[in-house]
Amino acid sequence: MSHRQAVVFDVNETMLDLGALDPLFEEWFGDSGASRGWFAQTLHLAITLAAIRTFRNFGEIGVAALAMEAQRRDVALPDDFPARLREAVLRLPAYRDVASALSLLRDAGLTTAALTNNPLPVVQEQLTYAGIAGLFDEIMSVDEAGVLKPAPEVYAFAAERLDLPPYSVWTVAAHGWDIAGAMRSGLRGAFVARPGQLADPFAPPEIVGGNLIEVARAIVAMRAATP
Amino acid sequence: MSHRQAVVFDVNETMLDLGALDPLFEEWFGDSGASRGWFAQTLHLAITLAAIRTFRNFGEIGVAALAMEAQRRDVALPDDFPARLREAVLRLPAYRDVASALSLLRDAGLTTAALTNNPLPVVQEQLTYAGIAGLFDEIMSVDEAGVLKPAPEVYAFAAERLDLPPYSVWTVAAHGWDIAGAMRSGLRGAFVARPGQLADPFAPPEIVGGNLIEVARAIVAMRAATP
Repeated sequence: MSHRQAVVFDVNETMLDLGALDPLFEEWFGDSGASRGWFAQTLHLAITLAAIRTFRNFGEIGVAALAMEAQRRDVALPDDFPARLREAVLRLPAYRDVASALSLLRDAGLTTAALTNNPLPVVQEQLTYAGIAGLFDEIMSVDEAGVLKPAPEVYAFAAERLDLPPYSVWTVAAHGWDIAGAMRSGLRGAFVARPGQLADPFAPPEIVGGNLIEVARAIVAMRAATP
Repeated sequence: MSHRQAVVFDVNETMLDLGALDPLFEEWFGDSGASRGWFAQTLHLAITLAAIRTFRNFGEIGVAALAMEAQRRDVALPDDFPARLREAVLRLPAYRDVASALSLLRDAGLTTAALTNNPLPVVQEQLTYAGIAGLFDEIMSVDEAGVLKPAPEVYAFAAERLDLPPYSVWTVAAHGWDIAGAMRSGLRGAFVARPGQLADPFAPPEIVGGNLIEVARAIVAMRAATP
């Protein structure tokens, strides 16, 4: 019988579809594509904070990035923009492959978890709204680690919380930088190639799938092949 | 008499104009704007590597980012693209405000230095080609620190090389993430707002100038005000 393994999923863009934010950005910027620029700026600020090991609330980072996007595009945002952004982020749908992939892993006996830069109350509400909260054994936030992804300490914290050695834990993400941090901590990396996403060439994941079901099947197959 | 102070300049985009790469990207991608996407991808990979404290040669990072940009745009690059990119990067002009700003600082008795993610032989050739190598007391590369900017260790290394305490060293950059790393190490931050660049809201610089001459004047003025 094989040893216990766990699969830790990233949340934003990996399981939840940020495309649902497009109407809000269309309203503010007259350009639904502004949501991509905003999220890229959010990640840029977060990865910089991870590099300098300085912690900030990810909601605060998202609001700051939105103010930068507005400044860059010379757009005046309404005063209630932080509250409206937060409300929209809490109401994202899951991609259609998420529930099946999680069920497939759980049926095969793997532990499932979520790990995100979002604050814990935010991710709990997000996963509940998306109807998938019940499919996770653990829901974790970087808040508890005190440092943002992709700082390797975050992934070490997650493995410890799951009571597993790092090499028994897979990280599944649509972001190469997230896989890079996980692998630096000794976890195993599985990349889901959502549209527009590319793996990090300096941290090649063991698994690359076109969707989460492919990724889940590959994880189960590799586990079966392990004595 | 005031104590010795130094000013450490970032190189790419702060002193050297990457706009000179546009014809090459126009040739490869049919879109000169692809050079922005390429450099943003280069920085994304570099900052991720800084976050996970893994060192790679910045030239190698730039080549990997270019391959990603080609994959993203479904463009086939010629086999000699790494050599041609390298050649073009060695032949960038300095912005017109650079020499005056450096002279102004040196005339006021400040030590001047360059600090870049580029390998040392590359930056030496770049600054020589641009005609400004002689205006620096020190030319430094992250190669010597073994970790990329914005990891705080790099800036600590630079201050040590200059034989100064961190608070006696200014970092001048057109990149908020660079200032953020410097300030995390106790250096002082001065931001030059090149077109399209915004300061990092979580690391507000002491000085923000529209060009390097404004920045240099502000540094000299603040020094004069220090007892």
